[in-house]
Amino acid sequence: MLERRSETDGVVREIELHLRDLLDARSASGAAYGPHFDRLWRLGSECLLGGKLLRPRLLMGAFDALAREPGGDAARRPAALRIAAAVELLHFSFLLHDDVIDEDLLRRGAPNVIGRVIDASRAASGVEADDASDRALHWARSSGILLGDLMLSAAHQVFAREALSEAVRVRLLDLLDRTITESVAGEQYDVGLSDGVIPADLDTVLDMSRLKTATYTFELPLRASAVLAGSGSRVEQALGEVARHLGVAFQLQDDLLCAFGDSREHGKDAFSDFREGKETAIIAYARMTDAWPTLEPLLGAPDFTEEHGRAIRAALVQCGAEGFIGSMVDDRIRAAVEIASREATVIPGGLSRFLLRVVDSLEGRRA
Amino acid sequence: MLERRSETDGVVREIELHLRDLLDARSASGAAYGPHFDRLWRLGSECLLGGKLLRPRLLMGAFDALAREPGGDAARRPAALRIAAAVELLHFSFLLHDDVIDEDLLRRGAPNVIGRVIDASRAASGVEADDASDRALHWARSSGILLGDLMLSAAHQVFAREALSEAVRVRLLDLLDRTITESVAGEQYDVGLSDGVIPADLDTVLDMSRLKTATYTFELPLRASAVLAGSGSRVEQALGEVARHLGVAFQLQDDLLCAFGDSREHGKDAFSDFREGKETAIIAYARMTDAWPTLEPLLGAPDFTEEHGRAIRAALVQCGAEGFIGSMVDDRIRAAVEIASREATVIPGGLSRFLLRVVDSLEGRRA
Repeated sequence: MLERRSETDGVVREIELHLRDLLDARSASGAAYGPHFDRLWRLGSECLLGGKLLRPRLLMGAFDALAREPGGDAARRPAALRIAAAVELLHFSFLLHDDVIDEDLLRRGAPNVIGRVIDASRAASGVEADDASDRALHWARSSGILLGDLMLSAAHQVFAREALSEAVRVRLLDLLDRTITESVAGEQYDVGLSDGVIPADLDTVLDMSRLKTATYTFELPLRASAVLAGSGSRVEQALGEVARHLGVAFQLQDDLLCAFGDSREHGKDAFSDFREGKETAIIAYARMTDAWPTLEPLLGAPDFTEEHGRAIRAALVQCGAEGFIGSMVDDRIRAAVEIASREATVIPGGLSRFLLRVVDSLEGRRA
Repeated sequence: MLERRSETDGVVREIELHLRDLLDARSASGAAYGPHFDRLWRLGSECLLGGKLLRPRLLMGAFDALAREPGGDAARRPAALRIAAAVELLHFSFLLHDDVIDEDLLRRGAPNVIGRVIDASRAASGVEADDASDRALHWARSSGILLGDLMLSAAHQVFAREALSEAVRVRLLDLLDRTITESVAGEQYDVGLSDGVIPADLDTVLDMSRLKTATYTFELPLRASAVLAGSGSRVEQALGEVARHLGVAFQLQDDLLCAFGDSREHGKDAFSDFREGKETAIIAYARMTDAWPTLEPLLGAPDFTEEHGRAIRAALVQCGAEGFIGSMVDDRIRAAVEIASREATVIPGGLSRFLLRVVDSLEGRRA
């Protein structure tokens, strides 16, 4: 989403530059700790820079719209770029620990950091590709935990070091703090649902999605843009509401794409959610329908095949789960559009136009 | 160590109070995220408050000595107490991720956080104590990762929020940053050594010990005390040197205690390092002696018994490993004493007396 059109190309390059600066500075000092540490940081940097930068682009798009307004603090743009880069570091640290917890070796079809550490161990020891020893796996997963800690700390350092007024710094720190707490709470829900510790109902799964993804993907960057641009707390609050709607829509779309989308486009393994028996909102809805007795044994079946996948898809359409979640996405997007376009007294025109472009790209989302 | 004599009792209570404040404030806001999140935070808080508070006590002992000097900034004492509490949060976050990585369920003979989450799951599901299902284990380890992230973030928040001058805040942030980087690098060495990715020689193992433990246990609290008390950079640097010597001595003592000490006193499983085949400095030394062919098959043997443990002990004494590492400890302590007592122009009398008390308690260490 937020496809790289010419207008945003410049911002993307600026964000990449700031990210590269942050990562390179740490790489230079980290080289003192030996080749393994150095290699891990470089590998992480490479994976991070290959991302779509959705969150920093949201922050900078909203910041630039707000800073152009009368009273907007355009002088804080360099700080905004650094905070935007820090938001990407935070995102990456969440991905790393998420992949450790989910025992994933792939992300978007390619080896993730853990997978790449394993590949490197294999290459170094000359062992065959399929023979991932327990030790190599342990080394790689531990690397994922440790690199996540480093990235999380690096994000904190950026927030802590900005030479902003006490009031602005504390507002940003509050935002960061709440974001991390919510994301961790959401991840805990996700783990609890998949481990059967927390019973799966639609409300719980929706809560989980909001906490785990929506807060840090939309609320943190959009609210931070208002704080940095010197906008009032009413703008920040309105942006927070837009962000919550878009964030939940984004996550539900992810679930729909993974279940019904074209895996060549979204880059995930086809049917991976079904194969893993993942608790998504779609599944939580289906659980309340007559289709459940048919679906339950197929989801996460030990002998899962493509045929199972197609049968699950058909049942989810048939029982109304696809339609229901699809209409939830539409509702959330409509609610966001209403706030973004109606409240002209609160959300200025430039910001409104930016938010509607974000909505457009969400609506046309295929990946 | 640093036994709770009457003089330090007051400080310990103050540190505990500040820690409790920090933890309770987060517990109050975290309750909004449901019972599982709430329970995890409370459980973590309880385990953390049961600790010996070695690091915050070092920080406050040195701070109080320095603040009493002419030019010492006694007004920063409340800030010092909060930073001291944050250092304990950082320590606890390292323990949590360390236990996940080492797959440990015990710490000092009692269930650690992961073990206690498993016990709670068992109690909730009514399953027998020995039947830790894969799911319960996954839930508990994931909880360890997530709680570690929360504690790490909480530590950062304290450092970031202190209303100190820009210069002092940046010095503390630099110190925090380097400490975390070194501790992660040390942990990575430790994992690499035990997974056989990094070859074990004495220098590497000593580097690992210094990075993984000495930096955050001694250097961070002692240097932070100088920064907070407004002492010059010469005091900070001298304290850094004392800290490195004491930190390595402390870690080597730990290795000696675990190998040769009384398990009823040090609280660890007798022979646990031998059973796990852990790469310590003692083992790295033995590797270079004639005893190695005898020792190698016994360390980490799948059928490990107490008899193996006793045979390893005897061989480590016989080959000189115990004596060599013991004399390294003595050397390090002597070097620390020299700096602490000789450099009266740099290290003032009160601080010197405090450091010599720390040395005393290290020398008499049984646990």
